[in-house]
Amino acid sequence: MPDLHAARRDALRSLLNESGVDALLVTDLLNVRYLTGFTGSNAALLVHGGGEDRTLFCTDGRYTTQAGAEVPDLERVIDRESAPALLDRASTQAAAHRRTGFESQHVSVEAHDLLARHAGGVELIRAPGLVEQLRLVKDESEIEALRMACAAADRALAGLLEHGGIRPGRTELDVARDLENRMLDHGSSGPSFESIVASGPNSAIPHHRPTGRVLRAGDLVKLDFGATVDGYHSDMTRTVVLGRPADWQEDLYELVRRSQQGGLDAALDGRELAEVDRAARSVIEDGGHGEEFSHGLGHGVGLEVHEAPRLAGNVAGTLSAGMTVTVEPGVYLAGRGGVRIEDTLVVRDAAPELLTLSSKELVVV
Amino acid sequence: MPDLHAARRDALRSLLNESGVDALLVTDLLNVRYLTGFTGSNAALLVHGGGEDRTLFCTDGRYTTQAGAEVPDLERVIDRESAPALLDRASTQAAAHRRTGFESQHVSVEAHDLLARHAGGVELIRAPGLVEQLRLVKDESEIEALRMACAAADRALAGLLEHGGIRPGRTELDVARDLENRMLDHGSSGPSFESIVASGPNSAIPHHRPTGRVLRAGDLVKLDFGATVDGYHSDMTRTVVLGRPADWQEDLYELVRRSQQGGLDAALDGRELAEVDRAARSVIEDGGHGEEFSHGLGHGVGLEVHEAPRLAGNVAGTLSAGMTVTVEPGVYLAGRGGVRIEDTLVVRDAAPELLTLSSKELVVV
Repeated sequence: MPDLHAARRDALRSLLNESGVDALLVTDLLNVRYLTGFTGSNAALLVHGGGEDRTLFCTDGRYTTQAGAEVPDLERVIDRESAPALLDRASTQAAAHRRTGFESQHVSVEAHDLLARHAGGVELIRAPGLVEQLRLVKDESEIEALRMACAAADRALAGLLEHGGIRPGRTELDVARDLENRMLDHGSSGPSFESIVASGPNSAIPHHRPTGRVLRAGDLVKLDFGATVDGYHSDMTRTVVLGRPADWQEDLYELVRRSQQGGLDAALDGRELAEVDRAARSVIEDGGHGEEFSHGLGHGVGLEVHEAPRLAGNVAGTLSAGMTVTVEPGVYLAGRGGVRIEDTLVVRDAAPELLTLSSKELVVV
Repeated sequence: MPDLHAARRDALRSLLNESGVDALLVTDLLNVRYLTGFTGSNAALLVHGGGEDRTLFCTDGRYTTQAGAEVPDLERVIDRESAPALLDRASTQAAAHRRTGFESQHVSVEAHDLLARHAGGVELIRAPGLVEQLRLVKDESEIEALRMACAAADRALAGLLEHGGIRPGRTELDVARDLENRMLDHGSSGPSFESIVASGPNSAIPHHRPTGRVLRAGDLVKLDFGATVDGYHSDMTRTVVLGRPADWQEDLYELVRRSQQGGLDAALDGRELAEVDRAARSVIEDGGHGEEFSHGLGHGVGLEVHEAPRLAGNVAGTLSAGMTVTVEPGVYLAGRGGVRIEDTLVVRDAAPELLTLSSKELVVV
């Protein structure tokens, strides 16, 4: 989709002009991918404010063919040292690159030294977060990829439940692997992150890594997992119970479910990030478990499974239509069990558009 | 294994004393893992040259329980902003932390600014690569993890071949997934990297991502894949042929096999890195295909699948006993096909110890 990537580079040029830099040296690989479509493991991009014909892409010899296919619309340089090579080029036309920005939130102190040695008459200007600023609001092609990733996760969970995949006698690792294989069946290129399958007391550990623990009747089982489609990630958590739920399990589930609904209702264009967190958190605080909801409410999701914005009490900023975020309150009772419920959604003018669609009724298996 | 990690921190202290710093702020998560055993996604470690009782570990509230289990032997701080929190602590005892090193090859320009704002009377000193220097030579526990990772890959390939997993009609993606599932069966926690299954003309692309291309008789099929055990990675490439090999395929295979053997024979304690590359490369050059061997000979492998040292013509340095590296020459004939053969090995005083043990005879399936 060269037009799409060219449009993103054009949008970046507006930011470059506002920032008073002539060009931006993009070295973060996800930012390079966002701006060009290139998916290899070594690349840099020099986006010139003056237009496409001054913009250069660089990768190494392993990717010559792939770069020709993925980045047909830009001049391509082949060099193993991609960012220094582009600066070498820029320094031969120093007048047009007098102020060249670099991604100072990604470039290490040592890498910056190396760039400075290749800058010649070019002044390297800190320009953190410009591409990330564009990536905050997703375009429809990105939302479509996220929709497919979320659908792969929804279908995997439905298949797992339908085929009795969560049952006493299986281990957490068995369930995680079954889930991941089902996501592959439904178009995922791989898990978005290390899947969490946490049973019984383990469900009280927010970020539990699956173990050989055998599932038993009476367990809460928390499943937090995601699929990847075209580089975009889904993120969903559901908590189910094995056998007839105890009263405390039902009460805990209902509390978290109401909190999550409160968060969803508040996730609207223009709302303060902290306000959305508050809307969900106050439900849990009123239920007497504020201390046991020990993390933020959610995060942006896209080319990274955790990206801006963060939904938490101490974060400034507002939601905008087109942002894709998770809403994921949880309560963790040490030694007993925990419940988390999480959706990925698109912020819209009115109600948010849920991308994860699995039921949020308490599932008893 | 607290004793093991304490011993590594002791070894680091010798480097700190040599470097003239009082302490090192370790922020790279793999380096934190190497020094503590901690496997979560947010942590920092302040190793003080004066001893364990002045050394501090920090992670956030999601990992309180996990950190207690994995890092029982160090004082633990719980704070979401782990590195700044440790510097805040250090600055309250500025005299003992007057010169505090930071990992300048990992810390970004912006993150360095943040650290400087928390440094108080502490001077932040560039100290790149100290933990990486220790990681170059593996201890026996690391080699055992690598051995298990390589065994998982060997067994997966054996099972794949035994069950006819590489056959006309299957796609590259089918084969990759089969291989990855078999590695999981044999103890891998996940692929070391995106598996390469490259068939027919695709085998001529060094870093090919598996596609829906259907395997056919006459194809070379290049498989480059690895398993992960306890965070350590294996890396192996084998190339097989579907049906009776053509003469050019046999000749190409034999050339690469001889080159690889030349590289293995040269991978000895004390040898120059460039000399090892040369030993393998000269075979391919003599065979008239030097231009079509378009990458370095190999790389270190450990907690990262690509780490130091790099085996290539333009790299200074020597191999030492206990380093674990790959030897992976390849020849790629555009439009026709390519052959690469790769092992992971431990450098020893005499002959290297191969960790990947799959046959290197040309396998005809």
